[in-house]
Amino acid sequence: MEKNRPLPAQKPLNQETIAAIATPPGKSALGIVRLSGPSALETAAKFLQIDPQNLKPRTAILTRAFLRGEFIDEVIALHFPKTASPTGEDLIEITSHGSPFILSSLLKAALESGAALAAPGEFTRRAFLNGKMDLSQAEAVCDLIRAENQASHRAALLQLSGGISKALNQIKAPLLEMLAHIEACLDHPEEELPPPPENEFIFSLHQTHEAISNFAATYERGKKILSGPRICIAGLPNSGKSSLLNALLGRERAIVSEIPGTTRDTIEESLPLGEMTPLLIDTAGIREQASDAVEREGIRRTQEALNNSDLALVVIDRSREISLEEEKALLSIANAAKKGNKPAIFALNKSDLPRRIGKDWEGISVSALLGEGIEELKKILSTRLIQETLGHEVLITNFRHHQALTEAAKEILLAENSIRDNVKKWEERAAFHLRQCLRFLGEVTGDNASEEVLNSIFSKFCVGK
Amino acid sequence: MEKNRPLPAQKPLNQETIAAIATPPGKSALGIVRLSGPSALETAAKFLQIDPQNLKPRTAILTRAFLRGEFIDEVIALHFPKTASPTGEDLIEITSHGSPFILSSLLKAALESGAALAAPGEFTRRAFLNGKMDLSQAEAVCDLIRAENQASHRAALLQLSGGISKALNQIKAPLLEMLAHIEACLDHPEEELPPPPENEFIFSLHQTHEAISNFAATYERGKKILSGPRICIAGLPNSGKSSLLNALLGRERAIVSEIPGTTRDTIEESLPLGEMTPLLIDTAGIREQASDAVEREGIRRTQEALNNSDLALVVIDRSREISLEEEKALLSIANAAKKGNKPAIFALNKSDLPRRIGKDWEGISVSALLGEGIEELKKILSTRLIQETLGHEVLITNFRHHQALTEAAKEILLAENSIRDNVKKWEERAAFHLRQCLRFLGEVTGDNASEEVLNSIFSKFCVGK
Repeated sequence: MEKNRPLPAQKPLNQETIAAIATPPGKSALGIVRLSGPSALETAAKFLQIDPQNLKPRTAILTRAFLRGEFIDEVIALHFPKTASPTGEDLIEITSHGSPFILSSLLKAALESGAALAAPGEFTRRAFLNGKMDLSQAEAVCDLIRAENQASHRAALLQLSGGISKALNQIKAPLLEMLAHIEACLDHPEEELPPPPENEFIFSLHQTHEAISNFAATYERGKKILSGPRICIAGLPNSGKSSLLNALLGRERAIVSEIPGTTRDTIEESLPLGEMTPLLIDTAGIREQASDAVEREGIRRTQEALNNSDLALVVIDRSREISLEEEKALLSIANAAKKGNKPAIFALNKSDLPRRIGKDWEGISVSALLGEGIEELKKILSTRLIQETLGHEVLITNFRHHQALTEAAKEILLAENSIRDNVKKWEERAAFHLRQCLRFLGEVTGDNASEEVLNSIFSKFCVGK
Repeated sequence: MEKNRPLPAQKPLNQETIAAIATPPGKSALGIVRLSGPSALETAAKFLQIDPQNLKPRTAILTRAFLRGEFIDEVIALHFPKTASPTGEDLIEITSHGSPFILSSLLKAALESGAALAAPGEFTRRAFLNGKMDLSQAEAVCDLIRAENQASHRAALLQLSGGISKALNQIKAPLLEMLAHIEACLDHPEEELPPPPENEFIFSLHQTHEAISNFAATYERGKKILSGPRICIAGLPNSGKSSLLNALLGRERAIVSEIPGTTRDTIEESLPLGEMTPLLIDTAGIREQASDAVEREGIRRTQEALNNSDLALVVIDRSREISLEEEKALLSIANAAKKGNKPAIFALNKSDLPRRIGKDWEGISVSALLGEGIEELKKILSTRLIQETLGHEVLITNFRHHQALTEAAKEILLAENSIRDNVKKWEERAAFHLRQCLRFLGEVTGDNASEEVLNSIFSKFCVGK
């Protein structure tokens, strides 16, 4: 199999020692410069007062750093030998005062001592090339650093811990078995091995196709998690949706008026809500019969917003009775949410007025006007969003992975079809497609990643990572 | 002596464990959260998978961090016991991926485990309170982080290494001896000790006054070093000063014209020059007799600029002869520089034209027009500035220190006067002023710093330092 052919990009023979600043630019208490590579220790010893022979692994030592004989700073040097280093190479971490002048002087000293300036993502790339992680894990490092909420953070952590590899290995196992069976028959026709069990293969391929497709489909959720969850505010006209949006945000954002249908554009605002910052989407009021074309367009947008949300916040005016027609409209929202498997939370607004809505209507009482019940509503929204977006299964969050999985699923269908169609030499064709499928699955974990692919992936990283 | 009275600000009895993010905000490879205080280990053990009993000092261990049971990140934990920690307390450094979400989660976990959020500069304040450094060293930490060029960086390092204490101890030694002598006589009049040697005291006080004044006077240079060195461009009208400024900057900054006296405002621009970024100050041309009031004002500014500079760059048009009157004007520049003990570098401009200036005029040939000699000129400027500003003696760079030294010098004069005036009981008065002097000197190193003084100093620090 192609899988075992080492490419130059994977096993560089003559690796340099690289150096970079690993902390963000700016003045702070501490900053870190790190060096990784076969001569990290010897390079560091050229500008630090350390003895490479007597450096205890993983033990912090206080030493002095110099640039061209000029004292730079007292620093803490920490050596990770290649057996215990994140890059799989000798690694030195130098922690200094967090002064940009000191950090750039340390980097300069490292470069003048023979280190090369690390390319973006080169530390992680080396971790990948040295077999410390697969490519999907390396990509997760970047996602992890960028994650801004608990859901995206958890998704990145699951990937970083090798979740994608594990899922793919489960998918690959029956394919490898099948391929071995077919190849044995093809390679040794003289041995009269039992013929491949066609129906069993079709069943197994069908299951595998489903597994790959389902995995690929998690990309929809993964994408949403990366971009943050969305709450759609919907309801009848004049139920106080815009007032509630303002009350949740704690400031005037939407224009509020007594005239039903004032909100026609969809308004989107970020709402800090505990660990998350969901996008709050205000919509036009839903009516079964819209009065004019502009309003109809607003309603179309509401339905679209509902489809693209993770949670529907349905606002109902509890100070008046609901007509049958209005009830229908509200049910249409609830149904749209249900269809999309999204929770709907009902807020009974105008709790400052006497309740006149029927007893059947249940939900959390709020007064957007007085701010009553707003904090409680926020808590409920936060809890439900965490339930909705915080899963413990591995999600696909990367377009590259999604693409490779989609292609892999296609190959499974082609393999299945070659058996079903009972074409001549179906074994050869099925084996070809199985190999193709495995190749696409391998792309996710970077089994045969070309220099080009790696360059494109790691160029998105920051320097020092 | 007041000096020995411990103030509450200096020896807090019941110290909390504090926590802060120690790296700048922003996404990067690595970030650090640190905890310092008597229960740093126990606090960290509440959210890291570490065993405080079995943690080897200064040894990096890979562990997992949690916030409310949710996995945050794999981190490196490093424990510095109070005997070997920069704060003089148990200290834990936690290095994670450089994600703001992860770092704030780690901080949250530390706070929820019982740590208090560190105030700005509180780590350094504790280092001071625990006797790991004096106040002038603590203040140098802030200067070191802010230093943007080699000169200010070196000044901060010299202070951080205790340079000010050392200098002050030399100054204090004879004062303490004198005070002991006087106090012995005052305390035990019955013992008939030999009377204090008045003339010897006057001589010694005179010397000490000089030492303190000289030390305080380094503040002028110290200030300049912090703000960066200054180069003043001066010369006769129409010698090409503005063209040379533009050539040095590599872009059009000053208006250049054939009409002598075009530059009337003083132009200031930063010139990146190797390790330094001096301010380049273009001035009006100097003439012995200015033609009008505006030009006279320009000349006054030139002389002022010369006084406030570290180096004079004198531009001379080498393509024409210099009149006696012009020679006088140029000599006045050279003399002004000499008087201020500042180097003057002569640039013979217009090397693109035939040389017609007298052979006696020496300097570096340049053509601002063609850019000839500009790189060489930059090298010379850089070398001279480094020679001028990079000293190895300790400088006063802090207004607070300068003030205290000035007051201390005044007290010495008052002590000297009480002896000279031969007032009754001069011993008592001299002893009083000597004690006052020592108190002011002690202010620099923070011997009796009040909570108020410490608050004002450390509030300028960043959080995490």
